[in-house]
Amino acid sequence: MKAFQDCYPMKYAHCYGCGRENAMGLQLKSYWNGVDTQAHFTPGMQYSGGVPGHVYGGMIASLLDCHGTASAAAFACRERGKDMTQEANPARFVTVSLSVNFKRPTPQGVELCMRAQLLGVEGRKVRMSLCLLAGDQVCATADMLAIELLPEAP
Amino acid sequence: MKAFQDCYPMKYAHCYGCGRENAMGLQLKSYWNGVDTQAHFTPGMQYSGGVPGHVYGGMIASLLDCHGTASAAAFACRERGKDMTQEANPARFVTVSLSVNFKRPTPQGVELCMRAQLLGVEGRKVRMSLCLLAGDQVCATADMLAIELLPEAP
Repeated sequence: MKAFQDCYPMKYAHCYGCGRENAMGLQLKSYWNGVDTQAHFTPGMQYSGGVPGHVYGGMIASLLDCHGTASAAAFACRERGKDMTQEANPARFVTVSLSVNFKRPTPQGVELCMRAQLLGVEGRKVRMSLCLLAGDQVCATADMLAIELLPEAP
Repeated sequence: MKAFQDCYPMKYAHCYGCGRENAMGLQLKSYWNGVDTQAHFTPGMQYSGGVPGHVYGGMIASLLDCHGTASAAAFACRERGKDMTQEANPARFVTVSLSVNFKRPTPQGVELCMRAQLLGVEGRKVRMSLCLLAGDQVCATADMLAIELLPEAP
């Protein structure tokens, strides 16, 4: 199964969090999970919070943000009756706003799961609800609004 | 002038974003700027967004989050009539919620400035308004709620 990020147009594939063209980056990969989406990632032990043993907040926001923008593209394509992974030049979204609620400390050394649920598509904007889990524990939730980049003038 | 993060108790000084004990981390440093606070940081070129030339959203959230938790500690100490940089065991805050609004693309290769303004202290909670600037351009704003860690049982 092709990850959403593996379908990004080459010129938009350099994101540190999820770009396949960024060799130094995290290379997050997002996929369908039924009608929702999901991604899995295990942060390295250097990404500690203030207290060793917990993941730092910036990593949690990064994982939610990158999974969210990829999911926004996939959701928008689906709403338009298309399959993102089959498109030659699929939509590319960026974040307008991201609100993260940190529910409990996120443990290090375990695989994290990020999920996104579509709330609505309106024109170029996609609204989603996201969460980050460690096992069956929800460690963070987020609301996100993403917007599609306009095509460049030829 | 001592940075807020340089006053963190040793056991809380391992944050990837701002811990002085994390040799692999970003080592963000926050200071007073009048009644507000500020920090400066120039992200490495690997921290690109999808489009090279812009900083990725996760880095922006990370810088705001780390500057915010450090500022929360400094603001709380000040409200209690103390100077954080003179305390042997100052307060340590973690994030409850962080809402980031991305106002415009954040350029790479320039020093960024993060600022925090106190909105209110209520018991263990500190509410702040934050922004991230590149030169005189506001690239992102954020609202943040942070909470003081409880002292551990002896």
